Amino acid sequence: MDDDVSLQDPAAARLAIRSGQLRGFTNHLAPGFVQGNLMIVPAAHAEAFAAFALSNPAALPVLARSAPGDPRVPALGADLDIRTDVGGYMVFRDGVLSETRRDITALWRDDFVTFVLGCSFSFEPVLLAAGVRLRHLEERNVSAMYVTNRPTVQVDRFGGPLVVSMRALAPADAITATLLSAGYPEFHGAPVHIGWPEQIGVEDLAMSYGGHGLTKLLPGELPVFWACGATAQLAALQACLPICITHYKAHMVLTDLKVRAPGVLTS
Amino acid sequence: MDDDVSLQDPAAARLAIRSGQLRGFTNHLAPGFVQGNLMIVPAAHAEAFAAFALSNPAALPVLARSAPGDPRVPALGADLDIRTDVGGYMVFRDGVLSETRRDITALWRDDFVTFVLGCSFSFEPVLLAAGVRLRHLEERNVSAMYVTNRPTVQVDRFGGPLVVSMRALAPADAITATLLSAGYPEFHGAPVHIGWPEQIGVEDLAMSYGGHGLTKLLPGELPVFWACGATAQLAALQACLPICITHYKAHMVLTDLKVRAPGVLTS
Repeated sequence: MDDDVSLQDPAAARLAIRSGQLRGFTNHLAPGFVQGNLMIVPAAHAEAFAAFALSNPAALPVLARSAPGDPRVPALGADLDIRTDVGGYMVFRDGVLSETRRDITALWRDDFVTFVLGCSFSFEPVLLAAGVRLRHLEERNVSAMYVTNRPTVQVDRFGGPLVVSMRALAPADAITATLLSAGYPEFHGAPVHIGWPEQIGVEDLAMSYGGHGLTKLLPGELPVFWACGATAQLAALQACLPICITHYKAHMVLTDLKVRAPGVLTS
Repeated sequence: MDDDVSLQDPAAARLAIRSGQLRGFTNHLAPGFVQGNLMIVPAAHAEAFAAFALSNPAALPVLARSAPGDPRVPALGADLDIRTDVGGYMVFRDGVLSETRRDITALWRDDFVTFVLGCSFSFEPVLLAAGVRLRHLEERNVSAMYVTNRPTVQVDRFGGPLVVSMRALAPADAITATLLSAGYPEFHGAPVHIGWPEQIGVEDLAMSYGGHGLTKLLPGELPVFWACGATAQLAALQACLPICITHYKAHMVLTDLKVRAPGVLTS
C-alpha cells in the first residue's frame, strides 16, 4: 500500500494498523511526525520507571505518560488507542518474553500506565531533507540496535546497559547528522559514539539486538550510534516486572505531533 | 616564560612578540581570545582576494581588513601593528616563498592591505573547557594541516585546493568538538570530514602541509578535519602575486577580541 494516504498521515496509519490492513516497520510511515517507543507498566512500578527515564534522558526521553488504566494518550493523538494502534506488541512476564501480539485489548488492566519515549525514527526525515543518505531506508530496512557496555543510571529496580541504534553514514553525512540530531534531545539528541564499535562493547555489527536492521558497513562509511529507547526493554527485563508490554521491533507508536524545524546554533 | 602574564593577555603577548621576547606557536597563548591567519596583499589584488574569501567562507572567514597602507587593524587590537606583532612572516614573491622574517617594517608599502582570517586555534580553549582532550596541546604541538583534493571556489586568479587542519580525537570528543565548533563559523565552523583521510585526498597523515603538527593517530582515535585558513596561502601562490605576506607556520595574529560563549541549539 505504498501509495496509500495512510502512509503519510499518522491518524490514518493508526486506523489502518488498528483494522489489520497495515503492519511492519514504521520508519517509512508519516514522515514529519513524531514516532515513539512504547512501555506499559503496572501503576505500582510507574513512578520508579519514570524516575529511571528522567535519570537517563538521552536514551529515554518521555514524550507522554497516560493516566492509570486509560488506554488513550490524547497528548499524542486524539483518537490514539494504545491497545490496538501499534503494529505489534511484546508482552514480558517476570522478566521473560511471554508472547507477541497484534492487539493487547484482552490483556488491558485498570492499573496499566503507558509511557511513550522518543525515537530516532522521528529525525530521519530531517536528515533526508538535508541530503543525508540513509542507506538502511533505501534497503527498506531499519537502523540496527546494539547492547553496549555502558551502564544506565540505575533507579530502584530499573537499570542495565544502554542500547544504541546505528546508522552507516558517509563521513560528511555523519557530521550533518550529528549537528541536526543534536537539536532534537526529545529523540535522543546527538550521537553517543562514532567510528569504533568495540569501544562501546559492540564486538560484531552483524549481531544486532533483536536480530534486525542494517548491520553492514560499506568501505568509507562510519558507524554512528545514538542512544535508543530499547534501553527501556532491557531495563524492564532486568526489573523482572510481573508484566510489562512494549512495541514489537521497529513497530513504533505513531503520533500526531509534528517534528519541530531543525535547530539553529545561537549564542 | 610559561608563567608570564603575556601568555594570558593578547596585548601583552603582542608586545612581547614585538620586542623579541616571545615567539613560537601561538595556540597556547591568550586562551579565550580570537587568533587569526594573516594575508597581506597589494591593494590591486585586495578586491579579488576579498571576493575569493567570501566565496569560500568555511576556509576563509574574514575577521578584519585594513585600509590600504595602514599597518594598524584597530578592530582587532587598539595598538596592533601588523608589521611587528606577529611571531613570524613568510614573504612570497611571484608565487614562490622568498624569505621568512620576524619583522616586515622594512618591506611595508603604502598599498599593502591586511586581511585577518579566522583560525581554529580560537575554539580550542572552548573544546578544552568542555572536556575534550586535545592531545596535540599536551604534546606542545599544533594541529597538523593537509592539502585536500577538494577545490575552492575560484575567483579571479585565486583558487586551488582546500587546506584542512586535523585533530586526533576520541570518538565522544569528536562529537562534542563537532557540535561546539559548529557554533563558530568565524573560526571555520563544523568539521568538513571525519574518519577517512583518503576520501579527501590525504594519503599519508605523516606528510603534513608545512611539515609540522601532530600527525599520529592512537588506536581508537578518529582524525577530524576542519577547513583551514592556510587555504589562502596556497591560493596566493597559485595567483602568483608579485608579493604577498602571510604569518609563519602557526604563528598567528593575536587579537583582543573575546571568543563568544558556545552556541546553543534553538528552533
